[in-house]
Amino acid sequence: MMKIVIDAMGGDQAPKAHVAGAMAAVRSFEDVEVTLVGNESEIQKHLTSNHKRISILHTEEKIKDDDVPTIAVRRKKEASMVLAVKEVKEGRADACISSGNTGALMTAGLLHVGRIKGIERPALAPMLPTVDGEGFLLLDVGANVDAKPNHLLQNAIIGATYLEMVKKVDSPRVGLVNVGTEDGKGNELSKEAFELLSQSQLHFIGNVEARDLLNGVCDVAVCDGFSGNLILKSIEGTAGTLFTLLKKELTSTFMNKVAAGMLKHSFTKIKEKMSYSHYGGAGLFGLKAPVIKAHGSSDHTAIFHAIRQAKQMINEDVTGIIEREIGNQEE
Amino acid sequence: MMKIVIDAMGGDQAPKAHVAGAMAAVRSFEDVEVTLVGNESEIQKHLTSNHKRISILHTEEKIKDDDVPTIAVRRKKEASMVLAVKEVKEGRADACISSGNTGALMTAGLLHVGRIKGIERPALAPMLPTVDGEGFLLLDVGANVDAKPNHLLQNAIIGATYLEMVKKVDSPRVGLVNVGTEDGKGNELSKEAFELLSQSQLHFIGNVEARDLLNGVCDVAVCDGFSGNLILKSIEGTAGTLFTLLKKELTSTFMNKVAAGMLKHSFTKIKEKMSYSHYGGAGLFGLKAPVIKAHGSSDHTAIFHAIRQAKQMINEDVTGIIEREIGNQEE
Repeated sequence: MMKIVIDAMGGDQAPKAHVAGAMAAVRSFEDVEVTLVGNESEIQKHLTSNHKRISILHTEEKIKDDDVPTIAVRRKKEASMVLAVKEVKEGRADACISSGNTGALMTAGLLHVGRIKGIERPALAPMLPTVDGEGFLLLDVGANVDAKPNHLLQNAIIGATYLEMVKKVDSPRVGLVNVGTEDGKGNELSKEAFELLSQSQLHFIGNVEARDLLNGVCDVAVCDGFSGNLILKSIEGTAGTLFTLLKKELTSTFMNKVAAGMLKHSFTKIKEKMSYSHYGGAGLFGLKAPVIKAHGSSDHTAIFHAIRQAKQMINEDVTGIIEREIGNQEE
Repeated sequence: MMKIVIDAMGGDQAPKAHVAGAMAAVRSFEDVEVTLVGNESEIQKHLTSNHKRISILHTEEKIKDDDVPTIAVRRKKEASMVLAVKEVKEGRADACISSGNTGALMTAGLLHVGRIKGIERPALAPMLPTVDGEGFLLLDVGANVDAKPNHLLQNAIIGATYLEMVKKVDSPRVGLVNVGTEDGKGNELSKEAFELLSQSQLHFIGNVEARDLLNGVCDVAVCDGFSGNLILKSIEGTAGTLFTLLKKELTSTFMNKVAAGMLKHSFTKIKEKMSYSHYGGAGLFGLKAPVIKAHGSSDHTAIFHAIRQAKQMINEDVTGIIEREIGNQEE
């Protein structure tokens, strides 16, 4: 039996999505227990039946999206997110999920769960969609905005380990995100990281361009947190803008509405392809236990998949394997 | 009368698009003369009538997309791009346009046209589409991958000057591309650049996120060349992927084809909105004369608009005004 703790109060659809996701997870996974941290009466509203493997840890306090992370984590000691992370710290849970304030979760994770020995900077790593449906892991997307070359190498090791263990990708293709595909391209950081990656045992395929990521040019895309954040948000922003434009155009006339109605199923399929809810959340890799940041707009499906992801990370002992791999790198 | 020189041999649709774009331009603008540089017989094929204000500068050599920029510019002294830039250098033309190898054009521009006094690093600056059709200027997208804070301030001054003079935007809103909108966000570079921009005379609106750029959150988006390149290519890649998915889905069944046919006009409208051919090319700002990099896939419309853009830059003396603005900054 493993225990997964969920901050039930973070994100746009909290706690409803979190409760529904937890109920679906305990139905699907017989070896999973879930602790929901948050306002008990609000959580109870959405618990539609008695679930032996769901418990509630009550608290009134929560961290808001516009709270300053470092301050909020220190001051709001009873916040649902902080209590959730502490459940892991104190050994009462094996993994933690939150769809709340990203910076606060990184702060709380670092402070309470702590870094794996040898890891210099944890990385925030979402799976993003690709055309073929396999997805790719992008890391880092913002945990470490002033990265050093060795951080990028560590990210590559972590990312490849995760994909091998959890997604069962054989010898994941690692790409270095850069401004061109030729060797020798880029800024000082990427040039030095290129050398380190070339000398590593990883399946390093060289530089990759941002425009090829969604085509699945690599399984693990490595970059500093500043760059990754811009890529992630550019992809989100462009997809969002296009869907908005489409919606506006396709409802602009009666005939358009009729035609769009005929294509509804196709549009849904494309939206699902571009959505990352079924890929789970972004792992905060490099901590001593799995800490997963689900998207702020996570629905119950996204929460369910984040729980499944946490379960797989526990089953495969991803944290332990990353610790060994980083240890090997240092020798 | 002003003279604009065009490298007719660079880009996917050369020289056809370049000749057609030039013919359209001399028809529209009575004060414009165009010199097309490239293979005379290939160019003549597409010149459908006798144009007094179009001349040809013949050469056999050209720079290819996969040539190494610095080497190609030095060795291929007779390449169409090099000769085009030299027309500007030697005073026979007022501005230069190429849709060839970006790195080579930057190298040739720096080497032969030269930097404006006070400009530390030129910036490559495309206009990108926004939902409202106004567009925004992103700079830098790759000329300067290891930028310093002052380079970002200079980019902001250059970008705001260009938009005021050429696009007639009143007091352009300058945003610093960052991983969050709050003050104090980002890496070392963006934190320092934030301070400089705050103290400037510009209409600085603070940090902007990549996901809001296409919504028109600012008129000038400032960042280092590495970041800008990733943003540009993420936007391109995401839009391209979505259009590919749409096309595949909408032609997958007979009924889909029928419905998609009814919506053809709408799809075209959206594609045009997301296209940047009517915004002209990317300016290589900070050089002593207008040098414009048109997109590699430029068609005749894009070339026409690049010529219009060059004409406006000459009319408004953008280069001279940038020189004065940068001079003021240094005092």
